[in-house]
Amino acid sequence: MMMGADIENGNLGPYQDRPRTFPNMRSKPYAPVIFRILRGINVRVLVILLLLGFGYVFYIGASTSPIIVFVFTVCIVSFLLSIYLTKWVLTKDEGPPEMVQISEAIRDGAEGFFRTQYGTISKMALLLALVILSIYLFRNTTPQQEASGLGRATSACITVAAFLLGALCSGVAGYVGMWVSVRANVRVSSAARRSAREALQIAVRAGGFSALVVVGMAVIGIAILYAAFYVWLEVDSPGSMKVTDLPLLLVGYGFGASFVALFAQLGGGIFTKAADVGADLVGKVEQGIPEDDPRNPAVIADLVGDNVGDCAARGADLFESIAAEIISAMILGGTMAQRCKIEDPSGFILFPLVVHSFDLVVSSIGILSIRGTRDSGVKAPAEDPMTILQKGYSVTIVLAVLTFAGSTRWLLYTEHAPSAWMNFSLCGLVGIITAYVFVWITKYYTDYKHEPVRTLAHSSSTGHGTNIIAGVSLGLESTALPVLVISISIISAFWLGHTSGLVDETGRPTGGLFGTAVATMGMLSTAAYILTMDMFGPIADNAGGIVEMSQQPESVREITDVLDAVGNTTKATTKGFAIGSAALASFLLFSAYMDEVSSFAREPFKQVDIAIPEVFIGGLLGSMLIFLFSAWACAAVGRTAQEVVKEVRRQFIERPGIMDYKEKPDYGRCVAIVASASLREMIKPGALAIVSPIVVGFLFRVLGHYTGHPLLGAKVVAALLMFATVSGILMALFLNTAGGAWDNAKKYIETGALGGKGSDSHKAAVTGDTVGDPFKDTAGPSLHVLIKMLATITLVMAPVFL
Amino acid sequence: MMMGADIENGNLGPYQDRPRTFPNMRSKPYAPVIFRILRGINVRVLVILLLLGFGYVFYIGASTSPIIVFVFTVCIVSFLLSIYLTKWVLTKDEGPPEMVQISEAIRDGAEGFFRTQYGTISKMALLLALVILSIYLFRNTTPQQEASGLGRATSACITVAAFLLGALCSGVAGYVGMWVSVRANVRVSSAARRSAREALQIAVRAGGFSALVVVGMAVIGIAILYAAFYVWLEVDSPGSMKVTDLPLLLVGYGFGASFVALFAQLGGGIFTKAADVGADLVGKVEQGIPEDDPRNPAVIADLVGDNVGDCAARGADLFESIAAEIISAMILGGTMAQRCKIEDPSGFILFPLVVHSFDLVVSSIGILSIRGTRDSGVKAPAEDPMTILQKGYSVTIVLAVLTFAGSTRWLLYTEHAPSAWMNFSLCGLVGIITAYVFVWITKYYTDYKHEPVRTLAHSSSTGHGTNIIAGVSLGLESTALPVLVISISIISAFWLGHTSGLVDETGRPTGGLFGTAVATMGMLSTAAYILTMDMFGPIADNAGGIVEMSQQPESVREITDVLDAVGNTTKATTKGFAIGSAALASFLLFSAYMDEVSSFAREPFKQVDIAIPEVFIGGLLGSMLIFLFSAWACAAVGRTAQEVVKEVRRQFIERPGIMDYKEKPDYGRCVAIVASASLREMIKPGALAIVSPIVVGFLFRVLGHYTGHPLLGAKVVAALLMFATVSGILMALFLNTAGGAWDNAKKYIETGALGGKGSDSHKAAVTGDTVGDPFKDTAGPSLHVLIKMLATITLVMAPVFL
Repeated sequence: MMMGADIENGNLGPYQDRPRTFPNMRSKPYAPVIFRILRGINVRVLVILLLLGFGYVFYIGASTSPIIVFVFTVCIVSFLLSIYLTKWVLTKDEGPPEMVQISEAIRDGAEGFFRTQYGTISKMALLLALVILSIYLFRNTTPQQEASGLGRATSACITVAAFLLGALCSGVAGYVGMWVSVRANVRVSSAARRSAREALQIAVRAGGFSALVVVGMAVIGIAILYAAFYVWLEVDSPGSMKVTDLPLLLVGYGFGASFVALFAQLGGGIFTKAADVGADLVGKVEQGIPEDDPRNPAVIADLVGDNVGDCAARGADLFESIAAEIISAMILGGTMAQRCKIEDPSGFILFPLVVHSFDLVVSSIGILSIRGTRDSGVKAPAEDPMTILQKGYSVTIVLAVLTFAGSTRWLLYTEHAPSAWMNFSLCGLVGIITAYVFVWITKYYTDYKHEPVRTLAHSSSTGHGTNIIAGVSLGLESTALPVLVISISIISAFWLGHTSGLVDETGRPTGGLFGTAVATMGMLSTAAYILTMDMFGPIADNAGGIVEMSQQPESVREITDVLDAVGNTTKATTKGFAIGSAALASFLLFSAYMDEVSSFAREPFKQVDIAIPEVFIGGLLGSMLIFLFSAWACAAVGRTAQEVVKEVRRQFIERPGIMDYKEKPDYGRCVAIVASASLREMIKPGALAIVSPIVVGFLFRVLGHYTGHPLLGAKVVAALLMFATVSGILMALFLNTAGGAWDNAKKYIETGALGGKGSDSHKAAVTGDTVGDPFKDTAGPSLHVLIKMLATITLVMAPVFL
Repeated sequence: MMMGADIENGNLGPYQDRPRTFPNMRSKPYAPVIFRILRGINVRVLVILLLLGFGYVFYIGASTSPIIVFVFTVCIVSFLLSIYLTKWVLTKDEGPPEMVQISEAIRDGAEGFFRTQYGTISKMALLLALVILSIYLFRNTTPQQEASGLGRATSACITVAAFLLGALCSGVAGYVGMWVSVRANVRVSSAARRSAREALQIAVRAGGFSALVVVGMAVIGIAILYAAFYVWLEVDSPGSMKVTDLPLLLVGYGFGASFVALFAQLGGGIFTKAADVGADLVGKVEQGIPEDDPRNPAVIADLVGDNVGDCAARGADLFESIAAEIISAMILGGTMAQRCKIEDPSGFILFPLVVHSFDLVVSSIGILSIRGTRDSGVKAPAEDPMTILQKGYSVTIVLAVLTFAGSTRWLLYTEHAPSAWMNFSLCGLVGIITAYVFVWITKYYTDYKHEPVRTLAHSSSTGHGTNIIAGVSLGLESTALPVLVISISIISAFWLGHTSGLVDETGRPTGGLFGTAVATMGMLSTAAYILTMDMFGPIADNAGGIVEMSQQPESVREITDVLDAVGNTTKATTKGFAIGSAALASFLLFSAYMDEVSSFAREPFKQVDIAIPEVFIGGLLGSMLIFLFSAWACAAVGRTAQEVVKEVRRQFIERPGIMDYKEKPDYGRCVAIVASASLREMIKPGALAIVSPIVVGFLFRVLGHYTGHPLLGAKVVAALLMFATVSGILMALFLNTAGGAWDNAKKYIETGALGGKGSDSHKAAVTGDTVGDPFKDTAGPSLHVLIKMLATITLVMAPVFL
């Protein structure tokens, strides 16, 4: 009521008094020191420093295991390759001044927001580190710790150090993703004026750069921690810790990574979609101007959003996925090797690191196989970019299967069970096939070549309402096949592992869970290439925006439009992939949690019995957490988008010359509004996710204490975790697929079907697309991170529940 | 693409060839015999037959327990009262001929659809009865059965007979609900011309009639079955069954009731919302004519839908809720009485029947307390109908608290634990308070007097997209408080029961679950009054439609509009109430399932450990089932609504005189289209719900057999049930609340806020309302039934999984 009246009366709310220029956030005092130092150092000096550091690390690695040396070597080679890729990208021209100008506005906005956001996140991380420190200083020690002489203080320091390193690496992963994308976007735009293939190659190599850095950093970070703890704690020497217990010390790293990723994804997701929805609602729907039109005051905010939401946040997300998955597989490998009394358990423990080292190798080959030189000079009829990317993927996946089988033979061969490695190879194959099928299912439900999106587009012809109903049904329905696939792959991997011949002292088969872990690794064995394709999307999207804003000829736009469409598809499929691996990784971390609780509680904790009322309630609360988190994430976008709408409407009223290109809109105001709103809005859902498991666990621990029910807190948290995982997977699938389908139903109509652009069907489809935006780019991806964050937080915070 | 082109070219699809008149379904050969017989019998003859039957039943009851005689007496008195109420309603005048004509069209449509729908359902029920029979003929017998000499054939007959009786009673409950509503609607319209209070009284008494019949039938059906089995199986005599095992034989009754209720709710829900959405999309949005305008060809279908969707289906739904809750509480009471070695367990077993007998008494008093005679003759400024209904509710609830405490003292007093009855009284109070708080929360989130709906309305001012995003967030967020309330009430009721002093042989407290059961009964202790308020809504809605269609003066419309708005609120709150009791009842049935499995498997089945991969997958599949079911239910409405839209558009094009009242629209075609589509569409989701637990249980039973994992099938089904219950509760809360909030946000704007009717905000709000329709009236209520159906199907089908 207020709102309508305000606009009619020209009373434009509190924003009128704010400064109209985009505040230069670089000068803000709380820009984290680490970025200032990194920026101050010359690239060559940095390389030398890195090399020196690596030399020392190598020395430690060599005293740990030759496998670690192999992992280090591969990571360093891929870092060198990524430096080559980024140099190659940066040598490309930035095009005419109008492009450079737009690109600089985007870069300023993105870097400014990034600094402020990560400033807030790092303060929260430090606070949380203090909480963890104090909890660990007062916790009980486990029998293993006592046996190894690991005191409380050491244990606390280890966890906090791992947590902070994980958080730092995650921050760097996000920064790297954004750093390259704000530089590559304008180069892709410029190259699109010459050749589609060159533009594609630049986008792919820029994406490849950040993918290699993200994956490499996850691997080398864990390897360094592992080696450092190994040497420091004198593992495997008499009277100290056993190597099979070592991976549990790395959990803090995973928690740090997921903590930062959660807020990065929330803040970035809210930013990008609030700007997008706000820009579309006034620009497309009310004023009827095209997307990314320079007259729209929110267009720069929208383009900034692509960088902070898709590039930075997705970098942190995938970094965290890989870290969580490596650590959980290492824990399970260690537990199994110990139970089976395998003479040299390091092969089982370090297997995930080797898989990802090979991932770096095969993905690099895949990335380099996409070449752009053949059509140089002549504008030949371009090959479909999707086909080119698919070819690269085929190369990668074939090599991945081969190297995966080789790794299992190398590391998982044991005389106890000579054929076990073959079973585990098959587990890896199950994972790779699962990833393939997931990608296929996501495409089926989100690509307009298939039935579901066409049905959705048809339902737009009967109005906004039927479009939304059809989209919601499509999204809900799309959860069924992935769940069936995940179920089949968990069961088959479990039974392959179970029948691998690995048995414990009493002769019981023990390889089941490790089989599931290997399948997860198989699924992620081409992660770097997948991440490249994912990063490619927002870079192409940005390039399209720059082309549109700098008013390039139609032919250039066509090229970037094709790249953008391909980017949408790759982005959607990556989400299917991310949620599948999150489901598997979370299931693994859950069993690590149960081991951890057993070890602290000094009594077996084998069962989570949902027939106990309190445990059932834990499950109810876990599922509710997912619903509430999604609600708050979507509502944040809705609220922020409304602020953008009001600001854009205000600018159009106050500056009537904008529509005739006579006046320049105030882009900075929109960026500033979205930035401050998303920083504010990311806190509530993020805090909910972190606080609720701790509070629930603590309350039920107290209740259990007074009602004579030992371990009640731990059991309730376990149920919370499992129910939240299941609901989270389903909700994320629903949100991602519905969002992607709405987006593509709109695109299908824009190809001319059902009346094409401007028809009533198109208007209904735009509504669907708007609704889908926060679903697929804010709430959905945040849920991926949330699921894994819950799994790591319960591991790290276990002392609170016991 | 097809669609748009079709309409443009005047090619109007396959419907052109169909007959234009509404087919008189009465003459169809498969109208169920029972209805033809019931219709053929004179009411007085029926009463005499019933009295004779009751005489025999009394005789059996008297040989069972005096409590049964009490229950019979109360039920018969309330049936007599309901006959008085219906006679009172039927003596009211039907108003002018134009009203009668419309009412007859509605009645024909509703009865025709009801017959066809229940014909289909009864055929499916017979088929399922055969399946159950064959399963039970080949099942193993339990030790208890062997001890009591209960053979396979007897056990099979008992289960099938109970199933068929439950199905039949559920059908009758639905029929009664619809029968009275299609007769009361026109009388309410006619009375609205004279006095608001009289109209209110007619609607309440009509609702009260069906509420008393529905609740009374649930109670007397179970009481008759109990008494008949008691006498037939010579229970408690040496060498035969113990009375504490008797309630387990009644499970078939609950399954029969929920089976019919599921299809009734699906078919009716699809009918009512497809007609509503279709009518609104063309009428309100495209043509700008008001709701229920006689020019809209789909308006009769919409009004028919209110009767078959809200009255018939809700009758079956509540019938099933009460039956499931009574049976589960009887099972738990029996189990507990046996464990505690209570000398006379019949008090614990029959307690639920007594609670609902008092429910009938206190609700009757509440219904009769609403009188309309005071303002006869003069059109005095009417009191707010909500206040009047609330007063009646206050009377009911005060009496319910008193009678509940009395019942616990009467039946739950035992010398083992002299103060146990006081704890159980408190459990009942917990249930009553929970119901109150649930109603309050639902009102908070769906009433436009409160913040959430106002925020939703504001978000309409920035467009369709932000309205939908805000509504979805609101719905997701609204799950949090009810979950917290349910959690607190489960825990407190459990601990009140636990500390009641009832202990088993080993001295362990055993009253916990029974405490939860008593809380559920407390929640449902005013069910008949709640159902009255619920039935009141659609009758008032229909009356409003008849007033609008027969073009009565504005003052009459105002009266029915007020009643309609009150009906919306009572409908929304009843849903909160229904889902709360479904959650509790399902949790109780779950523990009954575990007892049942232990008893058949001859080994303890105490735990459902979600750390086992297969069990975890069962949970994943259970949650997925909820998502898929909701998807199909919503999609069915969307598809059918599109057919309606096309038909209505076609009529407007072919008969241009409709808009000027010169031509009469073909109402019958729309009714026929919606009827045949809903019958077709209800099968898929319904079959999914019934088949999936059976298939999953059987597959994992086989898998468990080959992998040496006993009881795997039963465990996986248990996890499926629990996860489906949790997800189902959350999803239903989300769908119901979002739908209700959208509806009222639209109503809020229609009061003149944010630009009022016809503004852009209003259009966006209408889109939200359209989306909410299938959420709140098809998928949401179907999920209530689904949750309980899953709980009963797992109990009845347990032999398949073992």
